[in-house]
Amino acid sequence: MDGQLILHEDARSGNCYKIRLTAAHLDVPLTRHNYDIMRGETRTPAFLGTVNANGRIPVLQVGDRFLPESNAACFWLADGSHLIPHDRFARADMLHWMFWEQYNHEPNVATLRFWRVFVGEDRLTEAQQVQLPAKRTAGEAALRLMDEHLAGRDWFAGGAFSLADICLYAYTHVAEDGGFDLGAYPHVGRWLAAVAALPGHIAMEPEAALAA
Amino acid sequence: MDGQLILHEDARSGNCYKIRLTAAHLDVPLTRHNYDIMRGETRTPAFLGTVNANGRIPVLQVGDRFLPESNAACFWLADGSHLIPHDRFARADMLHWMFWEQYNHEPNVATLRFWRVFVGEDRLTEAQQVQLPAKRTAGEAALRLMDEHLAGRDWFAGGAFSLADICLYAYTHVAEDGGFDLGAYPHVGRWLAAVAALPGHIAMEPEAALAA
Repeated sequence: MDGQLILHEDARSGNCYKIRLTAAHLDVPLTRHNYDIMRGETRTPAFLGTVNANGRIPVLQVGDRFLPESNAACFWLADGSHLIPHDRFARADMLHWMFWEQYNHEPNVATLRFWRVFVGEDRLTEAQQVQLPAKRTAGEAALRLMDEHLAGRDWFAGGAFSLADICLYAYTHVAEDGGFDLGAYPHVGRWLAAVAALPGHIAMEPEAALAA
Repeated sequence: MDGQLILHEDARSGNCYKIRLTAAHLDVPLTRHNYDIMRGETRTPAFLGTVNANGRIPVLQVGDRFLPESNAACFWLADGSHLIPHDRFARADMLHWMFWEQYNHEPNVATLRFWRVFVGEDRLTEAQQVQLPAKRTAGEAALRLMDEHLAGRDWFAGGAFSLADICLYAYTHVAEDGGFDLGAYPHVGRWLAAVAALPGHIAMEPEAALAA
């Protein structure tokens, strides 16, 4: 590793949890620096000027360099390890699921959790309110697609546990916070249990942390 | 390469162009199979059952295997080539920009182009109409972030032309179709010209193809 690793995060974020879960499976220590996104702590001039001009967490700091985007940080941590398939097609297929997670899953499954648990449904803007039905439908479609994929497989890509599973686990396992019924997706349920039973697994946060 | 490569695409899509541009830089031949997304040709049972259960293009077919998600298909094509940095941090930093493109750039810059050029502003749903101002603001923020990043650099990651540049070029170079003023981003303008001047570069499509 290149010097100290610092995770700039909000511990309640599934995107931040992905990085901690990857590091836990690799037995790599991370120093954690917490920000409260609800108080604008990632939009200060200091944060924007040094950590991430995009004003978002997580950012993985590697020595004096900063790496935004959760799935890219997981890739850096896992590069060369068993969490990334050696086979060329399987490696790209893992990335397929990671890009799909950020495009089709996170903006729906994670955003509804954020709006319900952190913002509060009665405090949403009109533009957010109008998007609720489409995000609900798209989130259910994402979970259904996962369920169909897992009907004949234990893991998402390459026949083994990989970053694709870690990145999809993060927001799927707390999808009920966003009002999704995980009971409707039995193969997803089996896969969630299998991920949580792996040696090296860590939980996201104690329940108390969510009661912010 | 593993047998014939077939690109399942809609030639007007920037996400499909990324894959053709990557293949052109690598001098790899692709067989092209076109679908008209406006006529639902990627939502047929045959497409959903065989090519992509997610109902989207592009999909890169490698022999009898199917790889959805444009940026993952670019990674498969370029794996082991000069388009992916050998340095571990630079490789992850390239992925950072590719994940950022799909999360912060494409849903704004590409979606406004799609809504204006392909759907027509007068045919947008109420939920789409309500999102226009936020997507405009977010698209401008994405272009500004690119401009600031390029102020001190020629390329996005690792000090050399990489997949990050290809994936960001695709929708940035046609951002004016979405009503964005590229003249406001001079470093982006210089970078666009530099990408287009590289040996191996190909254009997206003749203008005529856009007049669908």
